Amino acid sequence: MSSVPFTTADYTARMSRAADAAAEAGLAGLLITPGPDLTYFTGYRPTAITERLTVLVLAPGREPVMIVPKLERPDAEKAAKDAVAFTDWTDGQDPYEAAREHLSPDGRYGISDAAWAMHLLGLQAALPASGYVSLSGGMPMLRAVKDEHELARLEAAGAAADEAYHGILKVPFAGRREIDVAADLAALLIEHGHSQVDFTVVGSGPNGANPHHEAGERVIAEGDTVVLDFGGLKDGYGSDTTRTVNVGGAPSDEVRAVHDLVLRAQQAGFEAVRPGATCQDIDRAARKVIDDGGYGEYFIHRTGHGIGLTTHEPPYMVEGEAQELVAGMCFSIEPGVYLPGRFGVRIEDIVTVTDSGGRRFNNTPHELGTVH
Amino acid sequence: MSSVPFTTADYTARMSRAADAAAEAGLAGLLITPGPDLTYFTGYRPTAITERLTVLVLAPGREPVMIVPKLERPDAEKAAKDAVAFTDWTDGQDPYEAAREHLSPDGRYGISDAAWAMHLLGLQAALPASGYVSLSGGMPMLRAVKDEHELARLEAAGAAADEAYHGILKVPFAGRREIDVAADLAALLIEHGHSQVDFTVVGSGPNGANPHHEAGERVIAEGDTVVLDFGGLKDGYGSDTTRTVNVGGAPSDEVRAVHDLVLRAQQAGFEAVRPGATCQDIDRAARKVIDDGGYGEYFIHRTGHGIGLTTHEPPYMVEGEAQELVAGMCFSIEPGVYLPGRFGVRIEDIVTVTDSGGRRFNNTPHELGTVH
Repeated sequence: MSSVPFTTADYTARMSRAADAAAEAGLAGLLITPGPDLTYFTGYRPTAITERLTVLVLAPGREPVMIVPKLERPDAEKAAKDAVAFTDWTDGQDPYEAAREHLSPDGRYGISDAAWAMHLLGLQAALPASGYVSLSGGMPMLRAVKDEHELARLEAAGAAADEAYHGILKVPFAGRREIDVAADLAALLIEHGHSQVDFTVVGSGPNGANPHHEAGERVIAEGDTVVLDFGGLKDGYGSDTTRTVNVGGAPSDEVRAVHDLVLRAQQAGFEAVRPGATCQDIDRAARKVIDDGGYGEYFIHRTGHGIGLTTHEPPYMVEGEAQELVAGMCFSIEPGVYLPGRFGVRIEDIVTVTDSGGRRFNNTPHELGTVH
Repeated sequence: MSSVPFTTADYTARMSRAADAAAEAGLAGLLITPGPDLTYFTGYRPTAITERLTVLVLAPGREPVMIVPKLERPDAEKAAKDAVAFTDWTDGQDPYEAAREHLSPDGRYGISDAAWAMHLLGLQAALPASGYVSLSGGMPMLRAVKDEHELARLEAAGAAADEAYHGILKVPFAGRREIDVAADLAALLIEHGHSQVDFTVVGSGPNGANPHHEAGERVIAEGDTVVLDFGGLKDGYGSDTTRTVNVGGAPSDEVRAVHDLVLRAQQAGFEAVRPGATCQDIDRAARKVIDDGGYGEYFIHRTGHGIGLTTHEPPYMVEGEAQELVAGMCFSIEPGVYLPGRFGVRIEDIVTVTDSGGRRFNNTPHELGTVH
């Protein structure tokens, strides 16, 4: 099943919609720099993101223009020439002066979150009366609602990650290092169509209690509880799923109890998904189960994050985020409990908002898996 | 030949020197974000560079402090706990408020070039009277002068890239696509000890006239001139070298003449290297040869860039850059001539500044190579 390519019409529609949204938000325009934002709007992915300024300017009522280093112009034009106009600057010129001609001197602009601080400072210096807001701060919805072809890619990425999980249940765990199992996970993601592996967390025993532990030299032992969190990009769109397994079939009562709690929390978060619910509602629904179970202090991160062209993006399922959910949004629901020095449990699915509720893109069993 | 590991003493000395340099530059301190700067100062490389704020604050006369997301703290402490103090923030808290406690409200700070614009905007909002300058703008020398262990790594990376070049001369070119030769180049870099391949440019025939063309579907033909520009990281330090080859042994008179011109330009740039010469002197020396040869309008980029923990960093060998060279600096010298629609020629070595002149880290023949 191959994905449907995005067309110039898709890109033009996205840029036009974004320019309108910028105007509604009171912005003079959007400054889009290389990375997922630029890929989203034009399909252009520079070979490398360097110190040389590349920026797409989207302004209401004006043709999109991309300012590029002269020597990167041929590649940029090849990717996006039907959708945007180009202007270039040459090494030794001031790129911010080149950009200034396309900007309003006292305009307030949205700028890509990951634009280099160096470039923002250059623009601020060239346009002292201008103002800036990060896209995730000022327009967090910009890439949040996925169209049908994007949803199809995310669903396919989720299905591929599910295949990788089925595969990893068959490899030996006991007596091998975390990094060996992580390498197996990476190979499985690639085997099932991922072009890029972003992370393969294998957190065994006490390492599972560090939610951002990746994988290390620790040799996995019989009886260990192991957190497996893995994802990457397939056809340009992300996967991200977590399951917790036990080595051998005899988890302790506490592992069983904590796992059951996290499973119920994940389900509660999922059941809270519907258009009009807020992001923090999802966090609260999952957190309440863990709080009520007495483990609230051990759930030390937000409940989820958006996913799309990247594996981490708005919207964030976190207390204080009052953004309402809209059909087509996609994000993780991933509560966890982390008992320092002992073990951790996390369960994560990617979920999309439908007209009536939520739909999972990960569909492997949530129960504590058994490996050997 | 394995590299010498950097020690806590190395990191402490680098941080102390940087804080002193910040004071001399009139800065209240430096804000170092994940990426090569943070690796340089602490050895800490977060698993992923995300929207969650991590920042090391270096201020004169104060202990270095790293502000990290709570769930990444264990990894950060494991990497750097002997060298810096830590403070953390939790999802849902405002990370810029957490940072504010460690910053002077009206201080002027240097900030990593590639820090996220989102984070800079957050700091500017939390500290309205504060000021910022990019590190490459305010303190371009910060990582530019390499110590002996860094030089050893760069030399080893260059030698490995040279081995890759010897290897690529033996593979077939004619009848294969550029991307196939590029894959061979990548495999050779890995075979010779690189952990990361940053680029493998194979610009055949007219594609060679686009200096940032990477490699495409074009099938290489007998008689083509091919630009090969490749590099990556070995033991954390960069390689970057370019040679131009001819498929079959019969280049045209013009290819010969242009190649000879570029070779002489590269040599002229190299011979201009000495402590006290300026960066633009290197550019001028190389450019003069090409200008005098009548091809000046086809040399459309700067002559070189620094290299170290990244394959592109200050200092830049470009008109207008009056920075003086200092022994221990390392950078590329890579003049080229690009004839649109026809062919390109580029020759590039990494060079370090010695007490008396320059020394190359790439030492394969500069002459037009022959492949088949």
